[in-house]
Amino acid sequence: MDKGNIKEINEIITIGRVLTDPSDLFSYSFDASFGTYIPEVVVQAKDVHEIAELVKFANRALIPITPRGQATSLSGGPLPVNGGIVLDMSTMNELIEIDTEDLTAVVSPGVLTSKIHQAAEKVGLMYPPDPSSSHVSTIGGNLAENSGGPRGLKYGVTKDYVIGLEVITPQGEIIHTGGRTVKNVTGYDLTKLIVGSEGTLGIITKAILRLIPKPPASETVMAIFDSLMDAGAAISKILTSGILPAKLELMDQASMEAVENYEPSGLPIDAEAMILIELDGHPAAVKDEAQKVSHLCLEVGARKVKIPQTETEKADVWKARKLVSPAIVRIKPTKISEDATVPRSKIPEMCRRLQEIKRKYNIHLVVFGHAGDGNLHPNIIADKSDKEEMKRVEQAVTEIFQSAIELGGTLSGEHGIGTMKSPFMEMELGEAGLDMMKKIKHAWDPNNILNPGKIFPQPGQKLVLSE
Amino acid sequence: MDKGNIKEINEIITIGRVLTDPSDLFSYSFDASFGTYIPEVVVQAKDVHEIAELVKFANRALIPITPRGQATSLSGGPLPVNGGIVLDMSTMNELIEIDTEDLTAVVSPGVLTSKIHQAAEKVGLMYPPDPSSSHVSTIGGNLAENSGGPRGLKYGVTKDYVIGLEVITPQGEIIHTGGRTVKNVTGYDLTKLIVGSEGTLGIITKAILRLIPKPPASETVMAIFDSLMDAGAAISKILTSGILPAKLELMDQASMEAVENYEPSGLPIDAEAMILIELDGHPAAVKDEAQKVSHLCLEVGARKVKIPQTETEKADVWKARKLVSPAIVRIKPTKISEDATVPRSKIPEMCRRLQEIKRKYNIHLVVFGHAGDGNLHPNIIADKSDKEEMKRVEQAVTEIFQSAIELGGTLSGEHGIGTMKSPFMEMELGEAGLDMMKKIKHAWDPNNILNPGKIFPQPGQKLVLSE
Repeated sequence: MDKGNIKEINEIITIGRVLTDPSDLFSYSFDASFGTYIPEVVVQAKDVHEIAELVKFANRALIPITPRGQATSLSGGPLPVNGGIVLDMSTMNELIEIDTEDLTAVVSPGVLTSKIHQAAEKVGLMYPPDPSSSHVSTIGGNLAENSGGPRGLKYGVTKDYVIGLEVITPQGEIIHTGGRTVKNVTGYDLTKLIVGSEGTLGIITKAILRLIPKPPASETVMAIFDSLMDAGAAISKILTSGILPAKLELMDQASMEAVENYEPSGLPIDAEAMILIELDGHPAAVKDEAQKVSHLCLEVGARKVKIPQTETEKADVWKARKLVSPAIVRIKPTKISEDATVPRSKIPEMCRRLQEIKRKYNIHLVVFGHAGDGNLHPNIIADKSDKEEMKRVEQAVTEIFQSAIELGGTLSGEHGIGTMKSPFMEMELGEAGLDMMKKIKHAWDPNNILNPGKIFPQPGQKLVLSE
Repeated sequence: MDKGNIKEINEIITIGRVLTDPSDLFSYSFDASFGTYIPEVVVQAKDVHEIAELVKFANRALIPITPRGQATSLSGGPLPVNGGIVLDMSTMNELIEIDTEDLTAVVSPGVLTSKIHQAAEKVGLMYPPDPSSSHVSTIGGNLAENSGGPRGLKYGVTKDYVIGLEVITPQGEIIHTGGRTVKNVTGYDLTKLIVGSEGTLGIITKAILRLIPKPPASETVMAIFDSLMDAGAAISKILTSGILPAKLELMDQASMEAVENYEPSGLPIDAEAMILIELDGHPAAVKDEAQKVSHLCLEVGARKVKIPQTETEKADVWKARKLVSPAIVRIKPTKISEDATVPRSKIPEMCRRLQEIKRKYNIHLVVFGHAGDGNLHPNIIADKSDKEEMKRVEQAVTEIFQSAIELGGTLSGEHGIGTMKSPFMEMELGEAGLDMMKKIKHAWDPNNILNPGKIFPQPGQKLVLSE
């Protein structure tokens, strides 16, 4: 990009800011995944029409644009791998409009997801998707990656709550998809195509979200198991009992150990697994369901079951689960967080294979996550300066993906493909399946301007973590 | 299509049947909407590989293929408007495989939706989408049109329960989208793009559906209102009370009159509206919620509220709602069933406008439907042999669409666009929005083989019902 281009960008952007200082550029060169890529310019966006003009210019001048929110991505979504413009959407953060009659929220992309939770709950409503990052991640990022979270088990993921979008196309046109109605079958579902397309098909500048009444009560059940297989059996038993928990989370022994070392809170580190269940709904219903879930856990051999009685006790139980991520990076500096997902019935087998992979490659592997929907989070902890170790990690990650797909699962349940998983796309989708996705990308963005280098592998591309 | 083509089709199809007899062709020339179009050949499909070969041949020979199920479409989806091949998928009806651990059903497209309901319920599970036609429509048709139904209010529509598909592309490739996991963000969401694309992007040959635990109990509340506006207020009050009913249906005075004339059952035909509410979930919860809903209805002026106590009483209450469709076609032979949908808060205003349109064009208009999600069904009853009346109907339909869009709604909540609504697409989507849809169609099906003449309007196309 030459000086003329920067000048032109400065002329287009009058409300936001244009950054070219090397220290600013460096701040925009990484996310929560792997690798560092310095952009040529950063635009902090404020106005939809100016962004549209910027996209038109970039499309003419063939300059890549990588939109990003707070860059908490675990798959490389906001990395400007081909340089060009990073478009910081986190500054477009003013709009949260809750409509209590239509049960909708209209939001701008830079709004933190937790602010939407708060705004909805204040009026007795709920925005269900709850990625663990919600207090630091933007709704725009959640939309781009179709984020999940623990409540996905009962309530589904981000996509299930988006009914309309304002989007800038790769040609710089402003379009509106969907609308304010829950039901809409007018033509192709561009809303659900764009959500989860990782910024490769359009730039989301506004979203209309569906809200639901906030469930009036909740109960938590904690169960501890000497054997991981028994925990798997309990999960299966609960899910086929006619009860649909809001959350059903698993922590293995290694995650409990990590949390105990980080902040001792009396977790049973001699047990192989702990499961945490949240039930929500009518007060009478959740009281009854909590009892039933406890009995089911005891029936399949839980060592201990607890139903916390006060809000503080409840919060303490869930705190352990929240501490896993910060705790494990204390062990070694590099965390590779995966989200390979399998059909529910394959969770015990996937757990077995993960332990095998852990031994085979002698890696530090911690398993926790959303067991209720098969969306485990195998996390590998390593040190990226140790080339030999990282070679083993590469092989282990590859084998985790292979196992998930062999068991009828998928590469990614909620983190997205980005740069990390693109080499494995054909393994899951086949050539013809991947080709149908490429046709959409090519038809919409023939110049490959929007977030290039994501989702689709380069010919012969392999996973490389060791350089 | 010449004899050579028919011969080639006969060579490809060895398991299904190829029909060319004029009386057979006529049986495939209509659906539940408007217009008659005779195909040149009908193929009753049985085998996915043979269908793939058929599509390859059609793509080479430039012969249109219109897939169809039981042709209950209200928007013209299965009409072979450009002739060619009608591909009858209703004969591919053997597979219903319920997995009680994964909570999934794998089905072939010709299976009747009600059979899936039954198979799931037998093992304590539920497939929530419940289009009124479910006892006669195929799941393949439901997938193509993204069918809704009364339970859409709480549970969403067909698309919300499809997690994987086997699809034949317009080039005759067999691809698999999604899979057996509830969470999947591996690349673009082709599953949700294809569901609702009305057979224009691919032929669905298998689907993986998500099931949920069947709610253990349900309660019904019936409320009668002297004024339609009060009924609208009650709906709004219920939906903002923190209770999410499974169903919330409205019948206006004209629908009650039609039902009483068809099968007298003591409906209050002097009242302006009746609403029917179903609550489902834990027994204690639904009992309590039914009481709350009753009080809310009385608070806003319901003349009468009833909570039926036995299963027979419940069935009787819902029977009235089910009889509306058969009852109204007794009035005059031609029924134009619309599904223009508005944001929930705009239901009273939409009801007001519909009454105005009824008077202005002196038409027989009946309003009922899924009021809880803004998805009303204004039905116009006419006689298609009366050209003058049909001209007025055309104008009324156009004005209904305009009103829905002016109120922030959509052309179609659950019936699809087909041939009936394509002239209005640009009014809702704008030129740029419609263009993004066309780009997908063109990239996937450059020869326009699959179900041509649907969704996208011809230049200058207008709604014509009067010839």
